[in-house]
Amino acid sequence: MSISSIPELVQPNADELRAFDALFSASSAIGATPAGGLHRLAASAQDGQVRDLFRIWLDEHGFDVHIDAIGNVFGLMTLTPGAPYVLCGSHLDSQPSAGRFDGVYGVLAGATAIVGIAQRLRASGHRAPCNLAVVDWTNEEGARFQPSLTGSSVFTRAMSLDDAWACEDRQGVTLKSALEQIGYLGDAMLDLPIAAYVEMHVEQASNLEREGLAIGVVRETWAALKWRVRFDGEQNHTGPTPMADRRDALLAAAHTIAAVHAEAVRHGAQMHSSVGRLDVYPNSPNVVPSRTILHIEFRSPSTALLDGTATRFEATLRNIAEQTGTRIEIESRQLRAPLKLHDGLSRLAHDVSLQLDLPAGDSVTVAGHDAISMSRVTPTCLLFVPSRGGVSHNEAEYTADADLHNGLRLLSALLERICTEPSSYL
Amino acid sequence: MSISSIPELVQPNADELRAFDALFSASSAIGATPAGGLHRLAASAQDGQVRDLFRIWLDEHGFDVHIDAIGNVFGLMTLTPGAPYVLCGSHLDSQPSAGRFDGVYGVLAGATAIVGIAQRLRASGHRAPCNLAVVDWTNEEGARFQPSLTGSSVFTRAMSLDDAWACEDRQGVTLKSALEQIGYLGDAMLDLPIAAYVEMHVEQASNLEREGLAIGVVRETWAALKWRVRFDGEQNHTGPTPMADRRDALLAAAHTIAAVHAEAVRHGAQMHSSVGRLDVYPNSPNVVPSRTILHIEFRSPSTALLDGTATRFEATLRNIAEQTGTRIEIESRQLRAPLKLHDGLSRLAHDVSLQLDLPAGDSVTVAGHDAISMSRVTPTCLLFVPSRGGVSHNEAEYTADADLHNGLRLLSALLERICTEPSSYL
Repeated sequence: MSISSIPELVQPNADELRAFDALFSASSAIGATPAGGLHRLAASAQDGQVRDLFRIWLDEHGFDVHIDAIGNVFGLMTLTPGAPYVLCGSHLDSQPSAGRFDGVYGVLAGATAIVGIAQRLRASGHRAPCNLAVVDWTNEEGARFQPSLTGSSVFTRAMSLDDAWACEDRQGVTLKSALEQIGYLGDAMLDLPIAAYVEMHVEQASNLEREGLAIGVVRETWAALKWRVRFDGEQNHTGPTPMADRRDALLAAAHTIAAVHAEAVRHGAQMHSSVGRLDVYPNSPNVVPSRTILHIEFRSPSTALLDGTATRFEATLRNIAEQTGTRIEIESRQLRAPLKLHDGLSRLAHDVSLQLDLPAGDSVTVAGHDAISMSRVTPTCLLFVPSRGGVSHNEAEYTADADLHNGLRLLSALLERICTEPSSYL
Repeated sequence: MSISSIPELVQPNADELRAFDALFSASSAIGATPAGGLHRLAASAQDGQVRDLFRIWLDEHGFDVHIDAIGNVFGLMTLTPGAPYVLCGSHLDSQPSAGRFDGVYGVLAGATAIVGIAQRLRASGHRAPCNLAVVDWTNEEGARFQPSLTGSSVFTRAMSLDDAWACEDRQGVTLKSALEQIGYLGDAMLDLPIAAYVEMHVEQASNLEREGLAIGVVRETWAALKWRVRFDGEQNHTGPTPMADRRDALLAAAHTIAAVHAEAVRHGAQMHSSVGRLDVYPNSPNVVPSRTILHIEFRSPSTALLDGTATRFEATLRNIAEQTGTRIEIESRQLRAPLKLHDGLSRLAHDVSLQLDLPAGDSVTVAGHDAISMSRVTPTCLLFVPSRGGVSHNEAEYTADADLHNGLRLLSALLERICTEPSSYL
């Protein structure tokens, strides 16, 4: 499809931009940190409060609200009963001491955009071939409960509801009971016919900023290898126990953390790695640690590279266990294969950006997003707006208002195009 | 003094041994773990329960009970009003998932011994030149609240009451409010005239077992260097953030843990080292850790060796910080100098052991004990009974009944000698 054939795009007006700003500002106050960030873990009291805010806002703006059995909050804007839905959204939960934009932006921009589109379509008397919906996915972050992307994975049946309900936080609270406690445990999963899924997100990298682009159209994702590894040693007194007799699970963890880092460094820009979470038991100053649990990640555009790493690293772990007199167990292994987002939707996003005079480029995402879950079951488009300095999962995360509004303009125009002309991206 | 000049020693009879067994068994049930250990952190609900048990037992057996302002529980057996007290004791708190013997044994053996001695002295009409007392010191372990040896350090004025009250656990609960909550925050410190302090403890090493000895008379302690070190990095997403841009506080901690271990290994048997506690923030799988706090220990018989380690290790830490792009702060430094226990009391303990036919040897303690606090202000004797395999701070910690009874026999005879003949150890 050539640009000239794209119909004129109606855009969010100043009132709609103000409505978005007000909603975003109200969200930012819930779980706000003194340094201007957000601390709003999945299914926490704060998550409950922001869900309430979102639910009430949806009600007031003509959406039908549905809470499903894993706590996903859907706002349905039904224009043509029986037609499939163009779904957009992201997540309202955050990492600890994190930013205000990650996830939140996509949910609130989506909701605002839909209200404007529905008003215009209803005013025009146009009978749209699709309906619209927005969603807040439960526990995208995987900070309080592992694994991440829980709500979208259950929705797409990549994960069973029972497994998701059973996830426990550090205090042994299950996700099911946490959702029940905040009043967001719905009765059943929602069987929603979906035409396409669109997610708008902050980039969490500095490529757009560096290249002076307003929009990143994500074409593909990196693969990720995630292992949870446990070392068992022996609890003992740190004083009298001779060094040679110790079986120190924290020493084993320390060697592992250094090796995880070294593995990425040797592959240059082709691999990222981390240990973000380390649990130590009993974690008392005078006790040789008897148990450590590490959450290890390797990410790469190349699955072959990760396969090699997996083999080599398992040997490294056994070596470390032997040298420290500990026992090693790889408790879980998860390989998230790389994937390509929907070509037609990506092309359409580029076309609409061009028509709106928004400079756009192709992007790659290293981070996981609910769009990655969704792309396995429906045509999916993932879009980025710039993140200042690429800083994310940090209170200093920042995207300028102008960039947020650019993204909202694109999202609004793109959703309207998909909704009214679903053939335009096929 | 020659052995022949020691008066005949009266010994605990079978009833007294049974009384000790019953009391020890009742204690072991409070905070018991399924694996036969003890989990009874300082000023926890379980610590409150065992203190209640102990206080009621003291009441029933003729002690005057005093709770001081840092929660130390004293049981006074006043034989001669106005005379100084021979104090014995240890602590009823434990490390997490630890053993039933560490500390507990010394408190309960001391209380049992005093009851028997007082009965015999009162029956004989002997006017003793000293009184007797037993004490349970608050937070010896330093597991929930740091530093360790809190109760005995406040008693000896090595630590101010305000500083001790202000110690916080991981949840930010102060020691003062935790004591208040379990009903063990007394009004004031106790001004008790003390003639001597005796502590009986399990060895937590395997020297006595290996040498076939029943009793270890501790002559000196190792020095200990304890640092709390903090690395500050930058919180960021573990996915997109380029490896070179990361300032990973956990990677810095990992290099430090390996270096702490290497430092001890290079000094052979002359140094022990450990990192027993490591706090990671935010400790979420997808976030580069922004802050780690390490509790580092080096122990050695030689202060000179520790001085050299301190200098060298500070440079090592700065190096690690530079290489990982983190900031390092040494938040606290504590050097516990080595010391010698009281010569006269040690000799008397040997003499009494010999008279009781208990094979005894000189010991050194690497672990800290309340006796170390007390030895700075009063003649102090620290005694060990065997620990099977040297295992301690572990649920498998074990001392056989016969060894517990041997220790009780010695403690009983020794306390009676000191109480009735305080000149015998001078």
